[in-house]
Amino acid sequence: MDIIKGGVCAPKGFTANGVHCGIRKNRTKRDIALIYSEKKASAAAVYTTNLVKGAPLTVTKNNIADGKAQAIVCNSGNANTCNANGIEIAEKMCAVTAKHLNIKSDDIVVASTGVIGQELSIEPIENSMAELCAGLGDHSDFAAEGIMTTDVAKKEIAVSFTIGGKECRIGGIAKGSGMIHPNMATMHVFITTDCAISSEMLQKALSEDITKTFNMISIDGDTSTNDMVTVLANGMAENEEITSAGEDFNEFCKALNTVTVYLCRCIAGDGEGATKLLECTVSGADKEETAKTVARSVICSSLTKAAMFGADANWGRVLCAIGYSGAEIDVNKVDVAFSSPKGTIDVCKNGSGVDFSEEKAKEILLEKEINIIVNLNSGSEKAVAWGCDLTYDYVKINGDYRT
Amino acid sequence: MDIIKGGVCAPKGFTANGVHCGIRKNRTKRDIALIYSEKKASAAAVYTTNLVKGAPLTVTKNNIADGKAQAIVCNSGNANTCNANGIEIAEKMCAVTAKHLNIKSDDIVVASTGVIGQELSIEPIENSMAELCAGLGDHSDFAAEGIMTTDVAKKEIAVSFTIGGKECRIGGIAKGSGMIHPNMATMHVFITTDCAISSEMLQKALSEDITKTFNMISIDGDTSTNDMVTVLANGMAENEEITSAGEDFNEFCKALNTVTVYLCRCIAGDGEGATKLLECTVSGADKEETAKTVARSVICSSLTKAAMFGADANWGRVLCAIGYSGAEIDVNKVDVAFSSPKGTIDVCKNGSGVDFSEEKAKEILLEKEINIIVNLNSGSEKAVAWGCDLTYDYVKINGDYRT
Repeated sequence: MDIIKGGVCAPKGFTANGVHCGIRKNRTKRDIALIYSEKKASAAAVYTTNLVKGAPLTVTKNNIADGKAQAIVCNSGNANTCNANGIEIAEKMCAVTAKHLNIKSDDIVVASTGVIGQELSIEPIENSMAELCAGLGDHSDFAAEGIMTTDVAKKEIAVSFTIGGKECRIGGIAKGSGMIHPNMATMHVFITTDCAISSEMLQKALSEDITKTFNMISIDGDTSTNDMVTVLANGMAENEEITSAGEDFNEFCKALNTVTVYLCRCIAGDGEGATKLLECTVSGADKEETAKTVARSVICSSLTKAAMFGADANWGRVLCAIGYSGAEIDVNKVDVAFSSPKGTIDVCKNGSGVDFSEEKAKEILLEKEINIIVNLNSGSEKAVAWGCDLTYDYVKINGDYRT
Repeated sequence: MDIIKGGVCAPKGFTANGVHCGIRKNRTKRDIALIYSEKKASAAAVYTTNLVKGAPLTVTKNNIADGKAQAIVCNSGNANTCNANGIEIAEKMCAVTAKHLNIKSDDIVVASTGVIGQELSIEPIENSMAELCAGLGDHSDFAAEGIMTTDVAKKEIAVSFTIGGKECRIGGIAKGSGMIHPNMATMHVFITTDCAISSEMLQKALSEDITKTFNMISIDGDTSTNDMVTVLANGMAENEEITSAGEDFNEFCKALNTVTVYLCRCIAGDGEGATKLLECTVSGADKEETAKTVARSVICSSLTKAAMFGADANWGRVLCAIGYSGAEIDVNKVDVAFSSPKGTIDVCKNGSGVDFSEEKAKEILLEKEINIIVNLNSGSEKAVAWGCDLTYDYVKINGDYRT
């Protein structure tokens, strides 16, 4: 498997674009994105479990009920959620996109991200659709920008791999930032592939993958109303279609996982206001679920996150988060270490502190990527979760988000 | 019932003191507290559910297994948790206190609060015990200061009420601030009363009370390792001892609830870095548990907390937190309003936004106490939860807590 350029446009037959349509006041920021497949594609998606769901999710769910889609349209700056006319606007977004692409309205995945509870006007979307469609091309980066809200960095990746002697590609873009605490589905992630795979197997691959990737991230403990991960597979790599489990399916899942783990790390590291990516690796668990519960609890702890921001090796907060995670563990067996490119330092053995050099710990924790390594010493199961530090800027960004 | 002065020393037969013993470097801050009852008292307590438990909790649990205690000793600056010698030190704290008070070591409630995972030296405690005991008197405020960590304000209250024609009193002090997300028990709260009540009924009163008080607060979602609420009842009011449910017990519970709700609001309003007390009142629920779940979810939402810091009426985040709370509710029936001494403003009806004056909303949200009023319009059950805003100072305090 190779990492390649091109993002969502790397797979054959996919083009993309992003423009400024005017939902956001800042004219230099693209605020609508479009991804288009020459051929109708197998489509799979997972959605937020929040009972308050964005109107676009309801419309998308209906549109891909037949397992097929051909385009993805997504605006940023307004979530089209908790508005009385939400469904109507989401359907209009599909209709206007379909008209310009000359495809069917129910072959469109529609998504919105931004402020909740402000009516989304269809006008700027209608007015910019001709330009958006005319500019479709090798512009994964424009689409990646078009879906950003408070994200600082664009998030895109593509990989190539071989199935049945045919070269296949998977590409993905994502937006993350705030209100991220996935539970079954998360954020906006749009993935394309030219691999031929049935809708059923595509859904299976995605649903299994997210339990170890997007459901293991948290920025702020808030599960969004609008999260979704969508994959379109147009089959243009001309491999024999994957219709059941087996070697080809495993290869596909491996490539998909490379894309999703990369995007997870991007989303966590670019959490609102974040200065650091936190990775918590839990090993030695009796069950995988125990390892997951512990890893998630650690990266969700506000106190641990604030300590990491301050490069303070306050490991007691890690122990505390393990203790209240709800997982049944033996506290007296727990080891904790901090690791980064500057080295690894043991801070706790068997549930009690060990002597360590504060100077060395500071050096390790001043890095941009920190791994919190937990060994429960009670089995062989493991899990990884990703998060970020809690900073002044998170508060700043969210103290006045709507203006 | 009247609010009276005197804190934990208001009930007959109770004295208290607090001194600087040297655990904290700041010599102007008292860091050890003592509460003493002339007569041995009925004792009840609730403890954190965190699997990582401070050593003092284990020792206290053993000491009051017989339902009796006569003194409470608590240091701040060090939690005596996750240390190999934790139990030994907690027992030494009891022994040295007992020796100076000339009471039994197992009649002592011992507690510690502060940094986790640093060994607590017995020396400063031993060296200051004579001074601490000699100064016992009407000094509830010294004790309240002695248990503070990053708390800005002392938290104390007392009430008087009548049982069987006898005037009784309940007093309480508390420390809160960070690592507060109670689950069955919380923080350090020490309550005294001269009401005569059996250990069993005292425990019943406390255990029932906390489900509507301390378990409905959250500062940061982190359930501490050292939380406990303790009540000592020495019977010196000479009422007929309460040994069963009935009118007297109800009177006692009502008075206890006045004390605990007051302390809850103090703890929430003085959360680490907080500038505002948030109160979320949920009504119209089908079940009390639903109302509690929703209220807790709203006051735990980092995004809602940050919006309140910025006085931003971003009610979509309230809806979002209701949606992911886990409670089964009908989103399309939910009403939300913001209220403060400056007035009340409706922001959401039937799950969708309503037009409101941003100017008026800002005026309301700039106040120090904000009530987030949620009506689920699906029944008659209700609940209240308390929290605080998320601010730059929370991050500052917790980015470098240990130094």
